[in-house]
Amino acid sequence: MGKKISMAVIRRLPRYYRYLADLLRVDIKRISSKELSERMGITASQIRQDLNCFGGFGQQGYGYNVETLYKEIGKILGVDRRFTTIIIGAGNMGNALANYTNFQKRGFDLIGIFDVNPNRVGQQINGINILHIDVLEDFMRKNSVDIAILTVPSHVISEIAEKVAELGVKGIWNFSPQDLKLSHDVVVENVHLSDGLAVLGYRIKEQEED
Amino acid sequence: MGKKISMAVIRRLPRYYRYLADLLRVDIKRISSKELSERMGITASQIRQDLNCFGGFGQQGYGYNVETLYKEIGKILGVDRRFTTIIIGAGNMGNALANYTNFQKRGFDLIGIFDVNPNRVGQQINGINILHIDVLEDFMRKNSVDIAILTVPSHVISEIAEKVAELGVKGIWNFSPQDLKLSHDVVVENVHLSDGLAVLGYRIKEQEED
Repeated sequence: MGKKISMAVIRRLPRYYRYLADLLRVDIKRISSKELSERMGITASQIRQDLNCFGGFGQQGYGYNVETLYKEIGKILGVDRRFTTIIIGAGNMGNALANYTNFQKRGFDLIGIFDVNPNRVGQQINGINILHIDVLEDFMRKNSVDIAILTVPSHVISEIAEKVAELGVKGIWNFSPQDLKLSHDVVVENVHLSDGLAVLGYRIKEQEED
Repeated sequence: MGKKISMAVIRRLPRYYRYLADLLRVDIKRISSKELSERMGITASQIRQDLNCFGGFGQQGYGYNVETLYKEIGKILGVDRRFTTIIIGAGNMGNALANYTNFQKRGFDLIGIFDVNPNRVGQQINGINILHIDVLEDFMRKNSVDIAILTVPSHVISEIAEKVAELGVKGIWNFSPQDLKLSHDVVVENVHLSDGLAVLGYRIKEQEED
């Protein structure tokens, strides 16, 4: 497995992982790239190419062993690994994410929520107290935090990102529309919700033209 | 432009579009695939391959004309087209999306918000009244709705999706963790936030192993 897998393939792996979990749930043991293609809306050749990247478990005319493939992708994604996370920004998006129980199932444990708004500080979301951002530094010295989920306004995003990076987070999940460029060696995933909407718009337009 | 562009490329176009907009903002007129690669974290060969898909405006040793490329991608994505949208589910995620001003800038006009919760119905978000879902049908007969953004609980998602599809929406943006399969001919984009978190986890793990 020493070979490096491209980020384009990695970004599709969580999707394969979800589909394979669905198949396991209904007790499907083998699947061809063609069937997987129809279910997932990815071309069969793309699927074969993707899955070949990490060893290729398909057999001609026989398909993929669902469980083997599921476990192998899980191993690559590191689903057995747990990450501690905090959310900074307890507004609507922060609230929505804090209530998203799927994250815990996928290995991400929320251990703290921070905000500056006195109406929010002291409240609880999903059993976790909202703390004032002033105590963030102290909190992070006492608790090992792997990932900071940032749902703060754009005008403070850089400052807060630099701060959590300095305090030692390994990754930042950035929900502000502004891409982050940090001086620290921290992994950043920028979420751009409107990109998904743009793709939806494109697909509608394409369907209308057909 | 008659050639069909693969969905994998389409999904990257909004990102190119954002980056090119950033370049235009700082008055950069030409860019090579190599420079674009460094800024975007996509390999230069992937960029050349992607941009070749729709005509290839790059010139060897001279790079891409930023404005031409920006306009061309905008044309493909249909950014000049406007879409009417409604949000069903005025919880935290619905609230967050309703307040996301970027959507309007990208051509998506929010014209209605619906919920069943009596504490929410009658309130306003971003100047738009939250209506009871009972009046949805009437609303949709009076207003042309292109896209329904669904932020409702998983156990009602299928029912509500079928309903808006029957009432004539062209696209559904689904925020429930459950993928939608509809009997109607409606374009569906399923949002899986936890996929992004899984990719972040993978990248952290990879960096630790380096």
